[in-house]
Amino acid sequence: MTVLPIGKPEKMKKPLDFSDVKAARQRIQPYLYPTPLERAADYETPIYCKLENINPTRSFKIRGALNAVLLNQEQALQRGIITASAGNHGQGVAYGAAMVGADAIVVMPKQAPRRKVDGVERSGATALLHGDTYDEAEQHARELERETGRLFISPYNDFDVMAGQGTIALEIFEQHPSIQRILVPVSGGGLLSGIALAAKTIRPDVEVIGVQSIATPAMYNFFYRLELAEEETIADALSGGIEENSVTLPICQQYVDKIVLVEEAAIEEAIRWMFYKHGWVIEGAAAVGLAALAQKHVEIEDGKETAVIISGGNIDADTFLGLMT
Amino acid sequence: MTVLPIGKPEKMKKPLDFSDVKAARQRIQPYLYPTPLERAADYETPIYCKLENINPTRSFKIRGALNAVLLNQEQALQRGIITASAGNHGQGVAYGAAMVGADAIVVMPKQAPRRKVDGVERSGATALLHGDTYDEAEQHARELERETGRLFISPYNDFDVMAGQGTIALEIFEQHPSIQRILVPVSGGGLLSGIALAAKTIRPDVEVIGVQSIATPAMYNFFYRLELAEEETIADALSGGIEENSVTLPICQQYVDKIVLVEEAAIEEAIRWMFYKHGWVIEGAAAVGLAALAQKHVEIEDGKETAVIISGGNIDADTFLGLMT
Repeated sequence: MTVLPIGKPEKMKKPLDFSDVKAARQRIQPYLYPTPLERAADYETPIYCKLENINPTRSFKIRGALNAVLLNQEQALQRGIITASAGNHGQGVAYGAAMVGADAIVVMPKQAPRRKVDGVERSGATALLHGDTYDEAEQHARELERETGRLFISPYNDFDVMAGQGTIALEIFEQHPSIQRILVPVSGGGLLSGIALAAKTIRPDVEVIGVQSIATPAMYNFFYRLELAEEETIADALSGGIEENSVTLPICQQYVDKIVLVEEAAIEEAIRWMFYKHGWVIEGAAAVGLAALAQKHVEIEDGKETAVIISGGNIDADTFLGLMT
Repeated sequence: MTVLPIGKPEKMKKPLDFSDVKAARQRIQPYLYPTPLERAADYETPIYCKLENINPTRSFKIRGALNAVLLNQEQALQRGIITASAGNHGQGVAYGAAMVGADAIVVMPKQAPRRKVDGVERSGATALLHGDTYDEAEQHARELERETGRLFISPYNDFDVMAGQGTIALEIFEQHPSIQRILVPVSGGGLLSGIALAAKTIRPDVEVIGVQSIATPAMYNFFYRLELAEEETIADALSGGIEENSVTLPICQQYVDKIVLVEEAAIEEAIRWMFYKHGWVIEGAAAVGLAALAQKHVEIEDGKETAVIISGGNIDADTFLGLMT
């Protein structure tokens, strides 16, 4: 929706460090199995799908949310938690809050997929539907933060969250040390910055590419100083602008090689492909990397081993079935 | 199809022991992540789904096949492997054979789901389609075993395979030590005997129930001395008779509390439920435990914590979509 003005990000007080990602791994490891890195069908170049869709809560967001909740356990218990989410981060926070016994409110836009609202409530958190967009939900959550004194956990603009998402890169290089390129869905950049920082630290020559829908171009706008408008998208988890001084921005600028956009129709086709070829049900945001490959927005003729982050599986059943026919 | 005559199973030369299951765990652990035990929606009684559908090859069969291949690695390399399979075991054997570099032939009935044939071939094994039923495929594989001297790995009538399947029980009690009942899909009894032996050794008071489709009643016939006929089924992985002297039979007799049958329509409904409630695509065989709960063939009013084995996810895309509409 709103494309926030492009500005120089504020200087960070304490930069995110690779050691934070390694510490996050240690912290969340007892609660989360590693996700598989599965060879993709059809491609001659070795393409591997990092299956974050099979996490509890069906999304990578559980990693960052769990890291943030565990790190701030005492405050979370004393003050309660509030967060804003298009859905997946909210489920992760709700899951983590339940784990430590903290109370949590998750503000979500009114059109959030039913599956995501159910996921929040199943963990015992309160799902508060407010506003038509993620940005409006976040604004309301920030108001409630001020009014109630609850601990706010941002879906992306938070070092602890970013460090948690970065643990994906550690797993990838353990599973296939020879990976040379990583495709990452991007919205606010929490996932992208965490992975990029960790991946480039482990292997400086790895190529890290962020992928967005053409309908959700916030990071693309920031990178290339454009003002493409946001539109309705099948990749609901990627919608929303980026806070002007988001801590994700300088990290993405430093470590990410480029951002590419894919068309909505290509995302839908990639969802179908993943079901027919691999039997997985994935959400729109999770399909953008596969769409970029299929549309050749990322060239793979160089034969570089490529990991594609399949970020989540929370697509409404009827939306999914509608795409299949 | 054929209901094989009921007879007293041959005395086993060396009984399957719990230590074999523990050894199998150690052997396959470096290659397989544990599968999650996920709380089921809708039920007040704590029901947990053991998600074998997210294994590589999308089936629990990878466990036993991998254990058998790793244990017989030298012979497998010298002689090559042959197996018969309705599909899932074949994929497991193909995956294991590729891992150790052995050649493998998998004989499958002609109507095996395309997804399972593709899975075998993706691992580099030869899929040989022969016969109209699993039994005919197995007969042909046994002929080829004699003609070629290859190592035959049975999908169920094999201690190494059973020990591998039994590792599921070890994981379940690590994940939820308070589980009091386990529902297990049953065909030839490889999965059921492995789990039952391990579960009753760990916790003698746990209830172990085998579940079949009314259209695939081989173990039910054996238990209750009936001769119900086999019919066409959505649970293709459960079809086939049981070899008269199968080593699974005395173990099932000793450790399994009962066998229950569910109707085909209930299996279809359970596949739908799993997709709408949990977002998982599961095959018919994997849905029989959920069907037994929904149809109250297994009473859960006693509140006992119950694990349901979701055995696999290899359902053809069009079959699945046909069930959803």
